[in-house]
Amino acid sequence: MIIVTRSTISESELDHIRERVEALGLRTHLSRGEHRTIIGCIGDEALLEGISLRSMPGVESVMAVLKPYKLASRDFAAEKTVVNAGFGAIFGGDAITVIAGPCSVENRQMLEMTSAAVRSAGASMLRGGAFKPRSSPYSFQGLGLEALKMLADVRRSVGLPVVTEVLDTRHVDLVAEHADMLQVGARNMQNFALLSELGRVQRPVLLKRGMSATVKELLMAAEYIMAHGNPNVVLCERGIRTFETATRNTLDISAIPVLKRETHLPVLVDPSHAGGDADLVAPLSFAAIAAGADGLIIEVHPDPEHALSDGDQSLPLDSFSTLMRQLEPFAVAAGRKLRLPVAARDSTGSQSTPAMTTTATL
Amino acid sequence: MIIVTRSTISESELDHIRERVEALGLRTHLSRGEHRTIIGCIGDEALLEGISLRSMPGVESVMAVLKPYKLASRDFAAEKTVVNAGFGAIFGGDAITVIAGPCSVENRQMLEMTSAAVRSAGASMLRGGAFKPRSSPYSFQGLGLEALKMLADVRRSVGLPVVTEVLDTRHVDLVAEHADMLQVGARNMQNFALLSELGRVQRPVLLKRGMSATVKELLMAAEYIMAHGNPNVVLCERGIRTFETATRNTLDISAIPVLKRETHLPVLVDPSHAGGDADLVAPLSFAAIAAGADGLIIEVHPDPEHALSDGDQSLPLDSFSTLMRQLEPFAVAAGRKLRLPVAARDSTGSQSTPAMTTTATL
Amino acid sequence: MIIVTRSTISESELDHIRERVEALGLRTHLSRGEHRTIIGCIGDEALLEGISLRSMPGVESVMAVLKPYKLASRDFAAEKTVVNAGFGAIFGGDAITVIAGPCSVENRQMLEMTSAAVRSAGASMLRGGAFKPRSSPYSFQGLGLEALKMLADVRRSVGLPVVTEVLDTRHVDLVAEHADMLQVGARNMQNFALLSELGRVQRPVLLKRGMSATVKELLMAAEYIMAHGNPNVVLCERGIRTFETATRNTLDISAIPVLKRETHLPVLVDPSHAGGDADLVAPLSFAAIAAGADGLIIEVHPDPEHALSDGDQSLPLDSFSTLMRQLEPFAVAAGRKLRLPVAARDSTGSQSTPAMTTTATL
Amino acid sequence: MIIVTRSTISESELDHIRERVEALGLRTHLSRGEHRTIIGCIGDEALLEGISLRSMPGVESVMAVLKPYKLASRDFAAEKTVVNAGFGAIFGGDAITVIAGPCSVENRQMLEMTSAAVRSAGASMLRGGAFKPRSSPYSFQGLGLEALKMLADVRRSVGLPVVTEVLDTRHVDLVAEHADMLQVGARNMQNFALLSELGRVQRPVLLKRGMSATVKELLMAAEYIMAHGNPNVVLCERGIRTFETATRNTLDISAIPVLKRETHLPVLVDPSHAGGDADLVAPLSFAAIAAGADGLIIEVHPDPEHALSDGDQSLPLDSFSTLMRQLEPFAVAAGRKLRLPVAARDSTGSQSTPAMTTTATL
Repeated sequence: MIIVTRSTISESELDHIRERVEALGLRTHLSRGEHRTIIGCIGDEALLEGISLRSMPGVESVMAVLKPYKLASRDFAAEKTVVNAGFGAIFGGDAITVIAGPCSVENRQMLEMTSAAVRSAGASMLRGGAFKPRSSPYSFQGLGLEALKMLADVRRSVGLPVVTEVLDTRHVDLVAEHADMLQVGARNMQNFALLSELGRVQRPVLLKRGMSATVKELLMAAEYIMAHGNPNVVLCERGIRTFETATRNTLDISAIPVLKRETHLPVLVDPSHAGGDADLVAPLSFAAIAAGADGLIIEVHPDPEHALSDGDQSLPLDSFSTLMRQLEPFAVAAGRKLRLPVAARDSTGSQSTPAMTTTATL
Repeated sequence: MIIVTRSTISESELDHIRERVEALGLRTHLSRGEHRTIIGCIGDEALLEGISLRSMPGVESVMAVLKPYKLASRDFAAEKTVVNAGFGAIFGGDAITVIAGPCSVENRQMLEMTSAAVRSAGASMLRGGAFKPRSSPYSFQGLGLEALKMLADVRRSVGLPVVTEVLDTRHVDLVAEHADMLQVGARNMQNFALLSELGRVQRPVLLKRGMSATVKELLMAAEYIMAHGNPNVVLCERGIRTFETATRNTLDISAIPVLKRETHLPVLVDPSHAGGDADLVAPLSFAAIAAGADGLIIEVHPDPEHALSDGDQSLPLDSFSTLMRQLEPFAVAAGRKLRLPVAARDSTGSQSTPAMTTTATL
Repeated sequence: MIIVTRSTISESELDHIRERVEALGLRTHLSRGEHRTIIGCIGDEALLEGISLRSMPGVESVMAVLKPYKLASRDFAAEKTVVNAGFGAIFGGDAITVIAGPCSVENRQMLEMTSAAVRSAGASMLRGGAFKPRSSPYSFQGLGLEALKMLADVRRSVGLPVVTEVLDTRHVDLVAEHADMLQVGARNMQNFALLSELGRVQRPVLLKRGMSATVKELLMAAEYIMAHGNPNVVLCERGIRTFETATRNTLDISAIPVLKRETHLPVLVDPSHAGGDADLVAPLSFAAIAAGADGLIIEVHPDPEHALSDGDQSLPLDSFSTLMRQLEPFAVAAGRKLRLPVAARDSTGSQSTPAMTTTATL
Repeated sequence: MIIVTRSTISESELDHIRERVEALGLRTHLSRGEHRTIIGCIGDEALLEGISLRSMPGVESVMAVLKPYKLASRDFAAEKTVVNAGFGAIFGGDAITVIAGPCSVENRQMLEMTSAAVRSAGASMLRGGAFKPRSSPYSFQGLGLEALKMLADVRRSVGLPVVTEVLDTRHVDLVAEHADMLQVGARNMQNFALLSELGRVQRPVLLKRGMSATVKELLMAAEYIMAHGNPNVVLCERGIRTFETATRNTLDISAIPVLKRETHLPVLVDPSHAGGDADLVAPLSFAAIAAGADGLIIEVHPDPEHALSDGDQSLPLDSFSTLMRQLEPFAVAAGRKLRLPVAARDSTGSQSTPAMTTTATL
């Protein structure tokens, strides 16, 4: 921590600051410039949390030197983390992993149709909302437990692992029973009660960036989950809120290389929410892969016009299939490949007896 | 709802859209311009939630005509809502109501000292965090239940009603037992599970605007609480996130008159979080009152330098007292007055037997 | 300047950085912490402009300690600057000064009617656009030289000094001949060619904050004008661009006290552009005065419905008059008073022989 | 234009609005809903510029149906525009065109070295600042005319066409004499005097998006240049200003497909300014090509550590060369190819007698 003092600071004020810092077990180090004296605080910056440096007389500003995240930091892990959600839903390795499915689980038929189609097109994981965070209390809120059961059934019948959002600390265990990965939505990225609870669960977490969260805050949210015991966090950039209204959100494409530099955790991109427009899903997906993302999560619906939520940004089944074929050369250009769903790689497997039933996490 | 069609739309596409809209029970009305045909949808716009107009062929854009909030809307209530949290903590009437207290409840002594001081200076309600939403898992997280008990004790001993934040759906009943008003923090403004739960509780709710929430989204969050059964919502503008880094947040002062026009609910301002700097609390408080706010919520600490959280933006006790005196002429200029705490108005009461024990809400 | 090095920096990299800094005439000072070594650079930070510290091997980040503005800085001037545009248009003293007038000069009649009305209501200066920066090339662009002449005429006949915008370096002298103060619009705040040119002119400059400019950038824009020779700069907060669409811009009310702390220059507020809505002008004006602004610039039109530009946000004449009466108690609450136009204070003067003809600046 | 009226509108207010609109030559069309009556205005929306609909009694809001840009609109041009700046600097065709060079022209030697290197690596155009818009008046402001002459010389000796920024209406002709393309910087995107002047010049214009300009405003700025007579505009996304501070700006990658849908003009990306960090140039370049950009403009310096400006974000020569090789497969994945500089395609040409001397524009 560096403390920049005011030009008017007195020696006794300076002494007071140093005493306070040193009382916490850090050393201090003065640089006297022409206009300002600077106090370097050497030692564990976290100890300084206990005092309010900026409110001390003579202090002009305080600058943190160290990053506030530890477990999520690149410094902490020698290698990149690979998060394995089971049955081929692996994030962070050489291959690009695609998650696809409807915004909301609307009924069993549409879920099965969508799952089979996205799996056939190359998706490695199914997404589908059971509990939906809607900005209006009058909008469709999801089918809840009923949807969780449909997801669990289709997961077995079609052979795709499942990710779904959890909104409430009281539902964490329930959702963890039915899904392979738990999603924290953008609006809950700083719901610290929920993050802490997810730290105690034995499932990977897909953590979406809040719409006005900085990269640092996203990493601190991951740190919450990790510090509470769960190291399996996958980050997801899904667009931030800016002044631009031409798109639903502004995809922060730079966040991908910045996150890659700062953390060892895998990074996905959600082009559906970022653009809010089915026509933008393909170019944003290509850009995400080109920028170094480890995967994508895409909204797909058999009939977007009739979707109960997010129809505007959902791809129909055939468009998703086309997209998956177009992604391949971008993955290759980025020195990666597209991950295929498990059975597709396993010529001896079959859809009726999915290999996933034999994996440890199920 | 108004549907603007593409210049290239075919008659059959036009017919298809009208059929879909009319099948939901609305009427349609065509305006054929030179470049665009516009479809007016007459009837209950909420019914259109069930279909995705924008994903239909031939649709260029869709514009909502009606406001999505109903219960929170000015149209819904003939008069401005006055929220009475009991014992003189009344929001929305002629008088300006000030809430004050520490960011976090740190121990009983500091809480008592602060309460007595802010009450004496004219605050009508005590704030104090028991569960703290901190961006780092390593920062002080609040004393939890222990802090709730201290708040309840000091509430009785000093005679000030209490507002405190609730972070977790599982804690709603517990917090409601100990406090007169429940606060939803900025980070939880779209924690819809929490909002719904607060709809079922018999306590007023202080709803803080999310740091990137629009005024419309704030009103929709209030609508959640109201639609679930609790009409006693007090809104709070606390600064939004912008590109400007000179202040912690950017106080959206215009939101006050805009909210006054859109809703019948009371509107407070939190100058402490908006500016993030004790020096800014006074000018922002004056501006808030001048712009028409119904009250303020201010962080006060007996020794900001030693505060466990938010010391930078906390006023010391004497500064708060000075501020209260300075507020008066601004309130008068705005055609209001400052509300005084109950006992100060009740010459027969005494601090040892606070009148609040006789009020219905306790 | 403080240089934070990477944990992996080598001794030779460290030496290289120190040599580069010291070669420029500064001293360096090392603080070796557990995780990072920090290099303090003591001396004239401006000299470091000549090298790119951040691109040197081993450098993680670079933090400026000193403010980049000098002439505009509060440190530079012992007292607050009072800018006198002549004939009673004085900014920055004890009194609040109000500028009012139409967005555009549309014709002589409306200009005269508006000038007389705003003067009578208490405005000390007339605004009126001759060259209009319009976002569409097809919108009314102002009457140009013709409007300048009308402004100069009305200035004499009604007896109000005039401020008008200059858009083009080639027009600076022309505008300076006709107006008492030159305005730099928000879109030109970083038009450095124009700022430099205004540094050479003998007229005060009203510098509006760019819609996405930080407070620091606003002060650097003022520094441009001052460094080129013109110390008479009046700053104007007029709303910044954020995600909120309920208002045209977001008035950054906190910028007023922040600017008051950072600079000795006067600070005005433009509530018309900030809110973009005539209904918001009054509450935003009250808030601006309460927060410490030195004055206001308000759009007024005799018939807003027929205005050629900005009709939505223009006050009709009677509303402006009402507003001026309502402002008074807020000014008093803020320890100020409203400045009156010169003749109103001069009982011996008359409108037909305005006192302004005798002032030095005319 | 659609006018949404208030629920309380009277018949006479409704009649008044219709009369005003019809008096301008448009037709009106009423849709009476349960809560609101909507007035559709059929005809030339531009005519409505002359009145302020929103300030009429009974009007709640006004929605534009048509896009405000015409010449820049996709509807206006049957095919995509290809802008030819001469000698192989062609923007908007099948190939990806790369512009590279130093932020500022510092001296002849560095300019020659850089030009030769970027040409050899495959850049088709040289960039280099002569007039520099610097946020501080004390920073290096560019060498001005001297730099223009160096650019013209190197242009001939190395055989690369040149783009450089113009800051001042008075310099437009001068810059046009020395360069093949004129750049409008982000800070001048709404310098309408400059845009109008560039409409009269016989050189293509590279128009950079303002840091807080919407896509619509960028297109309106292009419209200014086009409406004043110059159809050769190349747009450039260079990052927008948001709350995120991890990068200098936030590259709005979605703007590329949105612009491709809205306009026929070519779209470049500036990854150097968007990220503000040499390490981010490669991933952002890949993403830009993947998203559909027609080219890139990249800052390159022979010795970034000693650059007089933007050293942090400049690529050294060898890194640029590597980048160009890495770009190729992304261009191919996007169905494009990399454009090569002219001489490289012309086996009969030589560096000493560049083919450019034979092209018409020189």
